[in-house]
Amino acid sequence: MKIGFIQFVPKFGNKKENIAKIKKLVKNNNADLFVLPEMCTTGYMVASRKELISMAESIDGPTVQSLIDVARKNNTCIIFGLPELFGDKVFSTAVVVDPDGVIAKHQKSHLFLKEKIFFNQGETKPTIFEWRGAKIGLGVCYDYMFPEYWRVLGLRGVDIFCNTANFVFDYGFKMMQARSIENGVFSITVNRVGVERGQKFKGGSEIVDNKGNILAKGNDTECVKVVEVDPTISRNKKWNEYNDLFKDRRIDLYKEDY
Amino acid sequence: MKIGFIQFVPKFGNKKENIAKIKKLVKNNNADLFVLPEMCTTGYMVASRKELISMAESIDGPTVQSLIDVARKNNTCIIFGLPELFGDKVFSTAVVVDPDGVIAKHQKSHLFLKEKIFFNQGETKPTIFEWRGAKIGLGVCYDYMFPEYWRVLGLRGVDIFCNTANFVFDYGFKMMQARSIENGVFSITVNRVGVERGQKFKGGSEIVDNKGNILAKGNDTECVKVVEVDPTISRNKKWNEYNDLFKDRRIDLYKEDY
Repeated sequence: MKIGFIQFVPKFGNKKENIAKIKKLVKNNNADLFVLPEMCTTGYMVASRKELISMAESIDGPTVQSLIDVARKNNTCIIFGLPELFGDKVFSTAVVVDPDGVIAKHQKSHLFLKEKIFFNQGETKPTIFEWRGAKIGLGVCYDYMFPEYWRVLGLRGVDIFCNTANFVFDYGFKMMQARSIENGVFSITVNRVGVERGQKFKGGSEIVDNKGNILAKGNDTECVKVVEVDPTISRNKKWNEYNDLFKDRRIDLYKEDY
Repeated sequence: MKIGFIQFVPKFGNKKENIAKIKKLVKNNNADLFVLPEMCTTGYMVASRKELISMAESIDGPTVQSLIDVARKNNTCIIFGLPELFGDKVFSTAVVVDPDGVIAKHQKSHLFLKEKIFFNQGETKPTIFEWRGAKIGLGVCYDYMFPEYWRVLGLRGVDIFCNTANFVFDYGFKMMQARSIENGVFSITVNRVGVERGQKFKGGSEIVDNKGNILAKGNDTECVKVVEVDPTISRNKKWNEYNDLFKDRRIDLYKEDY
């Protein structure tokens, strides 16, 4: 299975241009699964909830429809972030589209900095979908900080963690590597690049295998990386003849307190 | 508070020489707390349970008494690993001694490789003690792999994680850095050096602050490093005006599955 990331510079507020760029980058590359950054069709550095709502759309809206078209034309699956309007709420949501439409979504569980003012806290439970034989789990950016979140996904049998992100600090990749290692699961962590309203985003997107080895790494400019993997090797949690990452857990010692 | 590690080459089976070395290294340095490697009074690469038992001692035995003497003469606290004989069981145990005696112990919760054959699985719950105003939590080596373990210690208010280790793989430091970051807790992770029965130990011991910054790092030879810190800053879990590492946890989303 070919899995990849698309790390690019969204133009703030210019959905048309951003969607055109995504269309071009997906067309010019070949993968079964592409992961894109958080809020990559709108840009991220909103100044107010009002401005955020002006850019947000429902899952039934034209942005998601455009991305379904891209997935259909290229016979692929695309995970991307957008501000999701849902009644009077707005979530930072990872949306998954394939040639048939929307197959999953995850609303960011853990909001960071001023997102706590502008966004609503996600209401979706840790979210999993299946695609071409792989079980894929979703997270958005600062969700990386909470091992509980990824453990739930790991214990439910996820093969690949996908984190669609806009990192303003340097912790994200180190923590997603740890999530891969402790759960024995591949991960794709995608950070945008470019400067937006004074905030620099440094790229460095990563694809990591189920032992924590880095299979592909972005630089600090626009780039696309694709690697071929067998994600189902994640299902074997044995590290050696004696150790199994999940069976070795000592629930008897710590579960009651957790 | 001055916290440090002592990274050295134990001689296999030579308790007398190992204890003499510890005595010298503690005397020649100055700290409130020294962390030493796993099984550092006996060496680690045992070939059988029988050999292990021949080197093991109870907490009331002469090795622990010698280390209490060292702690008393230097008015300090020492955390070190030894094979603990307890009835017909043997544990890989982190023992804590101060001038008054043994103040805590933790039996390795998660055994690695052939330890599963030679040792008994630890029976102590995640263990905490207080020393000179700091709350300190204990782990042994491969315990690093399990975020649940350290989360229990973090949620109970630990300021410093201490991991007494003999690393045969390279994951330990990366994972202990992640444990520091996700819990906002200092950590001291001590690996031995030297080659024993064909197994190389690479040192690289680390003291990490409550944001994951490396304050001291060992090389691959014998060394002692001490840094002065205020461990109680760990008690503030706020990362910024909006985020708090513990309050941000979305127990509502994942606890039932964990």
